[in-house]
Amino acid sequence: MAKYVIGIDYGTLSARALVCEVGTGRELGEGVFEYPHAVMDECLPDGTVLPPDWALEHPQDYLDALYAAVPEALKNAGVDKDDVIGLGIDFTACTLMPIDKNGDPLSDKYPSRPHAYVKLWKHHAAQEQANRLNHIAEERGEKWLKRYGGKISSEWMFPKLMQTAEEDPELFKEADRFIEAGDWVILRMTGKETRSSCMAGYKAIWSKREGYPPRDFLKQLNPLLENVVEEKLGKVTSIGSKAGELTEEMAAKLGLNPGTAVAVCNVDAHVSLPPAGLTQKGSMLMVMGTSSCHIMLGDEEKIVPGMCGVVEDGVVPGLFGYEAGQSCLGDHYNWFVDNCVPEAYEIAAREKGMNTHQYLTSLAEKQKPGESGLLALDWWNGNRSVLVDVDLTGMMLGMTLTTKPEEIYRALIEATAYGTRIIIDTFEENGVMIDKLFACGGISQKNPFLMQLFADVLKREIRIARSTQTPALGSAMFGAVAAGKAKGGYDSIEQAAAEMGGALPTVYVPNEENGRIYDELYSEYRRLHDYFGRGENDVMKRLKDIRRRQRA
Amino acid sequence: MAKYVIGIDYGTLSARALVCEVGTGRELGEGVFEYPHAVMDECLPDGTVLPPDWALEHPQDYLDALYAAVPEALKNAGVDKDDVIGLGIDFTACTLMPIDKNGDPLSDKYPSRPHAYVKLWKHHAAQEQANRLNHIAEERGEKWLKRYGGKISSEWMFPKLMQTAEEDPELFKEADRFIEAGDWVILRMTGKETRSSCMAGYKAIWSKREGYPPRDFLKQLNPLLENVVEEKLGKVTSIGSKAGELTEEMAAKLGLNPGTAVAVCNVDAHVSLPPAGLTQKGSMLMVMGTSSCHIMLGDEEKIVPGMCGVVEDGVVPGLFGYEAGQSCLGDHYNWFVDNCVPEAYEIAAREKGMNTHQYLTSLAEKQKPGESGLLALDWWNGNRSVLVDVDLTGMMLGMTLTTKPEEIYRALIEATAYGTRIIIDTFEENGVMIDKLFACGGISQKNPFLMQLFADVLKREIRIARSTQTPALGSAMFGAVAAGKAKGGYDSIEQAAAEMGGALPTVYVPNEENGRIYDELYSEYRRLHDYFGRGENDVMKRLKDIRRRQRA
Repeated sequence: MAKYVIGIDYGTLSARALVCEVGTGRELGEGVFEYPHAVMDECLPDGTVLPPDWALEHPQDYLDALYAAVPEALKNAGVDKDDVIGLGIDFTACTLMPIDKNGDPLSDKYPSRPHAYVKLWKHHAAQEQANRLNHIAEERGEKWLKRYGGKISSEWMFPKLMQTAEEDPELFKEADRFIEAGDWVILRMTGKETRSSCMAGYKAIWSKREGYPPRDFLKQLNPLLENVVEEKLGKVTSIGSKAGELTEEMAAKLGLNPGTAVAVCNVDAHVSLPPAGLTQKGSMLMVMGTSSCHIMLGDEEKIVPGMCGVVEDGVVPGLFGYEAGQSCLGDHYNWFVDNCVPEAYEIAAREKGMNTHQYLTSLAEKQKPGESGLLALDWWNGNRSVLVDVDLTGMMLGMTLTTKPEEIYRALIEATAYGTRIIIDTFEENGVMIDKLFACGGISQKNPFLMQLFADVLKREIRIARSTQTPALGSAMFGAVAAGKAKGGYDSIEQAAAEMGGALPTVYVPNEENGRIYDELYSEYRRLHDYFGRGENDVMKRLKDIRRRQRA
Repeated sequence: MAKYVIGIDYGTLSARALVCEVGTGRELGEGVFEYPHAVMDECLPDGTVLPPDWALEHPQDYLDALYAAVPEALKNAGVDKDDVIGLGIDFTACTLMPIDKNGDPLSDKYPSRPHAYVKLWKHHAAQEQANRLNHIAEERGEKWLKRYGGKISSEWMFPKLMQTAEEDPELFKEADRFIEAGDWVILRMTGKETRSSCMAGYKAIWSKREGYPPRDFLKQLNPLLENVVEEKLGKVTSIGSKAGELTEEMAAKLGLNPGTAVAVCNVDAHVSLPPAGLTQKGSMLMVMGTSSCHIMLGDEEKIVPGMCGVVEDGVVPGLFGYEAGQSCLGDHYNWFVDNCVPEAYEIAAREKGMNTHQYLTSLAEKQKPGESGLLALDWWNGNRSVLVDVDLTGMMLGMTLTTKPEEIYRALIEATAYGTRIIIDTFEENGVMIDKLFACGGISQKNPFLMQLFADVLKREIRIARSTQTPALGSAMFGAVAAGKAKGGYDSIEQAAAEMGGALPTVYVPNEENGRIYDELYSEYRRLHDYFGRGENDVMKRLKDIRRRQRA
């Protein structure tokens, strides 16, 4: 008898539930739910106005998503609840909320206080706190800073906690716990708190060996934070573990059986390796969406300058998961399509029944590497890795009076490939070797030209994850591991990956001749990358300063 | 009784004759003639195929233009030939042709030999010869090289002579003279050879004090050139002089009286200062067209690195005329409009009844300096002054995901203004002071936003020449000087300029606040200008090399 598992992928604006078959990974049915409150970046539901850079969500949306999307997915899959053995979820992070001792969100009690709501991952109002935290950590020579490429982002947990403690200390004190929204959904499903090692490791400066940062450091951030770890955070559990079982009440709402196994929560990018079949050291997955995220697996902790983080048990239990990223990828190409494509091209694309990307690609793929004479730095949205600098901006050179739009388009794609190569080179130069390169995400499946170009620039074979829903499938696989082999699931994520994950048959094999030209171009890229990115000429930052002054 | 003069402006594709009133500069009528053979860059009239980079013209077109445009202009002006006291012409240069001892073009006798035709200014097939010439001149430490910014262009006379001597030595030997096409038209009008100091000075390495380069240098270029100065060139006459008088035959064809005074030929850009009213030292005129040309007047010879040339009597008799330039100006903005403007903007422009430039300008003029965070180097067509390097290319930085087309458009305009400021600064740093700044050319009259931006960046008042036909009016004014005061004209170009030239009432006054921001941006521009342009990082040249290899 076939067994089934459900994965729920919580995104920024909606959640998607996917029913999959254990043993094959076959995707049988899905349900999608858009959050009614969406992202609250202007005001609260009662009209209370928010300052700039805020981004909140409403916790009830996450539960409503569960109640709607899971039954819908089950119905679409035509699967009996008795055959569903486990569930897993993945969530955006750090997406942080305060709860009371019953696990109820403080926003229920204080609907007019902004700090009572969920601070979404992209809440950027704690930049001042992040700057202060980094300054203090550097001054103290905190060793954990190196595990995060030398800089803690304003999107992560402690800056968000600092902001609440500073701006609404009463509410901070009243909060029984601060918890990742993903872990809170698990709490609601199972009736008990289980914090994810993936979330704590990448977003809350936690490590398996050293735990959270020391008390005197936290006190220096804000006296209210001195005992926050013991009082308002809590024990961390490795991903790949079972968090608990569905409560009667939750099972009834989802149309499942009480006692169904629930996995520890994952983060969306990190959960995508097993569905691609990747669970061994030396693997790297490029998650290619509006931005890109690179997750690598190693069996030792190495310090890599400019990485986003390294976390033991962060991706696959027993291994070190490394994260790096590029601040824009699809967004970068979309910017060009939205702002720089002439009317004649749009008309030609329509005549050929192509969208603008397809038409530009059809022209760009006729060019040889280097034929345009163009070179760009892919920093339209700053640089996440390996420079970790949001104030860097885009650069392009080599334009002449004969430069064509498709040449610029190709140069932008090449720039993102060079950016990826610097990340891979930096990891390898610091002892994290990559012998298996996979990609997932819409771009990887839709754009063979771009993937071949990446293979040529990176000089490596690239394989593409089979599933188009890697996060939801990954979550479902962790659900199968939570159920365990005895219940028809698996005893490890490696086993799940071997049976349910995998790649498409296509392999992008690097073209050696193109690779030689790209070596030359990449060395030019790297020189400009260092010139503009490592302090030799901080013109981009000075221009941003002037821009801020002139806009003020 | 009013007296009249005629100016004929010979451009690349057509000639324009203009009838003007002495004393006022009033423009009464014009005639235009397009050259039937246009630019021959693919084949000769008999079908003989030309190699790449050639650009020839047919000498008969110049005479036909004279026969058609002058009578047409006279007719349109309604002026009696008895009241026409003088003529002047200006011509593109170096536009060089071989003639026999009767003054007939060698192309009449050898219609199938490419070297028998007129080599147009933009004939670029003598680059190899120019490189060799520069190399030899540098090795010999030829002092005149400094008068030309350290580099002789392939467009100028000696590289063109070298090419003919190398590739068709028989024809070179048979040529009785090599002559600028402009001087040849004067020869045809007056029956005698009169070579222009403006043409010889800027294009043929001639100076009033030192003459042409020495014989042993010329011999080193090619043995056939050893005695070319004495045998095939000839005496040079200052502009502002009378070349002669119309012959009977020519007068009959033009519908004028024999004996009408004819001025020494000028070059198109250089002839534009007097019609703007500029004849004193410290004056600078920006000729703003597809590219830009800057002509300055001084009373001493100074060596300015990267200038195109300094010529005594080159623009106004008795003064030193300095020339510099930017390789693209209008072409630069047009490239953007042709290649980078999205469909929605084109639609919005049409709805508002604007052309694309007007629409982009309407958006760009709402921005404050520095508000976009963008900065560009204006080298889409290389850099003429002060780097003298055709292999430099365009650069832009500061782009983000919110960068808009109108911001890029403005940044391109700002880049050309910074490029002009470097030219002015370089001249002043080397002792050529500029206290009066004027502009002429289509852009200067049509785009007040751009002119104000230039005033803000340059931190100087800018005035605009009144005439929309400055070259033709300038030629006419030199015609009035050739006639002389006794015949109803003038005894000097200064007198002609005072009465017939002048500026529009509009004065672009620099905005001090904008100027302070532009000072900051300009210092960033200058640093990148030096980084990419003076050898610190020759990435643009290396990319061009790769481009050439990949296109081969």
